[in-house]
Amino acid sequence: MTNLEQSPDRGGITGHLLSAADLDAAAATQVLDTAAELAALSDRSVKKLPTLRGRTVVNLFYEDSTRTRISFEAAAKRLSADVINFSVKGSSVSKGESLKDTALTLQAMGADAVVIRHAASGAPHRLARWVDGSVVNAGDGTHEHPTQALLDAYTMRSRLGRLSGLTVAIVGDVLHSRVARSNALLLNTLGADVTLVGPPTLLPVGVDSWPVKTSYDLDAVLPTVDVVMALRVQRERMEDSFFPSAREYARRYGLDAARLRKLPEHAIVMHPGPMNRGMEIAPDVADSPRSTIVEQVANGVSVRMAVLYLLLGGQV
Amino acid sequence: MTNLEQSPDRGGITGHLLSAADLDAAAATQVLDTAAELAALSDRSVKKLPTLRGRTVVNLFYEDSTRTRISFEAAAKRLSADVINFSVKGSSVSKGESLKDTALTLQAMGADAVVIRHAASGAPHRLARWVDGSVVNAGDGTHEHPTQALLDAYTMRSRLGRLSGLTVAIVGDVLHSRVARSNALLLNTLGADVTLVGPPTLLPVGVDSWPVKTSYDLDAVLPTVDVVMALRVQRERMEDSFFPSAREYARRYGLDAARLRKLPEHAIVMHPGPMNRGMEIAPDVADSPRSTIVEQVANGVSVRMAVLYLLLGGQV
Amino acid sequence: MTNLEQSPDRGGITGHLLSAADLDAAAATQVLDTAAELAALSDRSVKKLPTLRGRTVVNLFYEDSTRTRISFEAAAKRLSADVINFSVKGSSVSKGESLKDTALTLQAMGADAVVIRHAASGAPHRLARWVDGSVVNAGDGTHEHPTQALLDAYTMRSRLGRLSGLTVAIVGDVLHSRVARSNALLLNTLGADVTLVGPPTLLPVGVDSWPVKTSYDLDAVLPTVDVVMALRVQRERMEDSFFPSAREYARRYGLDAARLRKLPEHAIVMHPGPMNRGMEIAPDVADSPRSTIVEQVANGVSVRMAVLYLLLGGQV
Repeated sequence: MTNLEQSPDRGGITGHLLSAADLDAAAATQVLDTAAELAALSDRSVKKLPTLRGRTVVNLFYEDSTRTRISFEAAAKRLSADVINFSVKGSSVSKGESLKDTALTLQAMGADAVVIRHAASGAPHRLARWVDGSVVNAGDGTHEHPTQALLDAYTMRSRLGRLSGLTVAIVGDVLHSRVARSNALLLNTLGADVTLVGPPTLLPVGVDSWPVKTSYDLDAVLPTVDVVMALRVQRERMEDSFFPSAREYARRYGLDAARLRKLPEHAIVMHPGPMNRGMEIAPDVADSPRSTIVEQVANGVSVRMAVLYLLLGGQV
Repeated sequence: MTNLEQSPDRGGITGHLLSAADLDAAAATQVLDTAAELAALSDRSVKKLPTLRGRTVVNLFYEDSTRTRISFEAAAKRLSADVINFSVKGSSVSKGESLKDTALTLQAMGADAVVIRHAASGAPHRLARWVDGSVVNAGDGTHEHPTQALLDAYTMRSRLGRLSGLTVAIVGDVLHSRVARSNALLLNTLGADVTLVGPPTLLPVGVDSWPVKTSYDLDAVLPTVDVVMALRVQRERMEDSFFPSAREYARRYGLDAARLRKLPEHAIVMHPGPMNRGMEIAPDVADSPRSTIVEQVANGVSVRMAVLYLLLGGQV
Repeated sequence: MTNLEQSPDRGGITGHLLSAADLDAAAATQVLDTAAELAALSDRSVKKLPTLRGRTVVNLFYEDSTRTRISFEAAAKRLSADVINFSVKGSSVSKGESLKDTALTLQAMGADAVVIRHAASGAPHRLARWVDGSVVNAGDGTHEHPTQALLDAYTMRSRLGRLSGLTVAIVGDVLHSRVARSNALLLNTLGADVTLVGPPTLLPVGVDSWPVKTSYDLDAVLPTVDVVMALRVQRERMEDSFFPSAREYARRYGLDAARLRKLPEHAIVMHPGPMNRGMEIAPDVADSPRSTIVEQVANGVSVRMAVLYLLLGGQV
């Protein structure tokens, strides 16, 4: 695809974006390339494209995530779609309406795409059975968060020039992290080597079946990587994980200045946000030139524009 | 009216839509015909009309109802209006500002239409005294919900080809239902015969003055109807009504497969949503081809587009 | 500036609008003149201008204020900007993300302007250090609310023909009022004389350094003013201020019909809203022809359009 305006070739991703596991290398690369074209247009002050005029994107959020919601909202609006925010707190859904009935309702109202965030793993897949429109998984339980993996891949490729052959360490509470899971799957598809790093209690039991290496020793891993990605610590989950304390976590797995020095000179530091500064990442690391944290946010809008663009397809 | 683009003849409804009781047959039919034209345009992929560009529609919701709010929001946006959502929970209104001052504020901000949902019967009528723009009642207390009645009438006409002479049973907690009241009034205006069915404790005291029949015996009524409409059970109200139990309610007034078989072959099953599946309606009935529940949602958008179109009137 | 469409001369305000104290007379007058031109266009049924098409305005509200939020939302939408509402309650920000990280996130998402309401005085100034886009202070703690002061000045000028030489009494809980502070500063800049009126416990300790007179005796002041502005009583703050009672407050500082009669014939009555009718202002005073309360709301949209127009600057 060389011209977004003229040839919306939708060979790669079609229908839904439910899981990074569903993307082969060609489809994922198509998203990244499309995002790069859209970002280039934006840099040339083409802020708004008419591509999705008349299309309706519904943000169906069963969990709070203002950050992800406004990223999708900004992406859809830049493509001229109408956006309807449907936050489930205090809505009729909380009166007990089933996900299926909500799905049929949104479908009947003419939603062309439903972006769903849900606490239950698999909810987007169920939603996709009931609607004709496109479903985009914006995070489901501890399962997947595919647009996060895509924006992370975009960021790595943009900073380091390639994905194939990169070595990426993902550090922290992998057990509960949909970000870790989606990244591990997508990076493997795109030819990168992934090492999951964390205490034994925070690595998944079935991790042997993932296409990754594992380690408990962050300091040993750091000199070998191109990318180190700190996961957000979910404080409320720490207690459940029998991890000694926040301070102990920071001491063993937090990215601080000393650890930054152990990285190869070209290596970058990533975090999906929002950060607990001083916990999984030290403030001076977050703000260092090697940190891509702010770029990740900007790239998130481009990648989500690309996903909506490819799924909903330009001119009818 | 044969061409929405060219002749916005607004003979039928003007000013406000406060109550189904205000609509004569000509005005109601005009809304239904306009909705049909808008739906036809949408079927031909004309998703967005420029009709209300530059107009502002405010959704003023004092009660949660995401379903109704997003239906109006989708309708207004398809007509290119700007939509501002004003949910009163956690707003300055909860600090005790009067409805009048809120009305004057919205008026001063340039709201061309205010869609209001309020727990107090009559609130939309009071609002209409204070604003120049159009007020649309999106449900007031136990009083009325006129756009629900219009979309229900649209659905019946669309499925059964006519309204005049139809026999319609409305089943359940009629006492607290603005849906029942608006439907009874509008269907009577349009020439249908309405029977309200429910336990004596859930039928209104003054129902003798309504233009309807009443019955306590759903099974006796079913073979005689063209339409059976189940009302949503408000669980919190059940206790107040001295109705024995949810199970007993379902046994006597729930629409299940056995009752579906008692209906004439052409009869349809309606529900305003959101459903309590297994309570007032069994899942297999809700999902049967005779159920119009999903169509009602789609028709809701068309009918609300028609109402906004007719009230706000196209080109200035 | 005589033609908004053709010459977006942005000599007056640039970058941010953080404080009325930052505005010199030329800059403030430019906002008022621009607002007047925009209001005139709106009166001629030019409801929507293409000026900010493709620009994104984020409403970042850490405190509830539906009234202010929808005023900015309406203003931005009339200029064709995309608006994203970011209410912090129940968002990831409440999980402890710092204001700086939120700022960097909004910046990275491409926000061209951030309208911020925050309980902490100075929050908008800190935000402005971290974003390239324009920051507009929509109320910060007890510090400032500059667009309120601008709309009040606009209203006075529009009703009384001038600002220079006017005598303005601001009455009530000046101590906690960002409205009072911004008005006092801006009116002084524009040549008006301000008298702050309230009980000693509700006047700021350092008020001697403000460019104002003070008085404890409202009745003595009224015959001398062109404008009397009642501040909203924050009931929860009354107790902290050792003020005897609500009734006592109304008796000594409430604007009622008797006090209205003490005003010069041409004088006007203002209130920033929402009102506590019967407390700081009597209903018949609020609704009298001398009250500008509803005009203030309408003028608020014009003034906020002007601010966004001047800061974001029309055609790129």
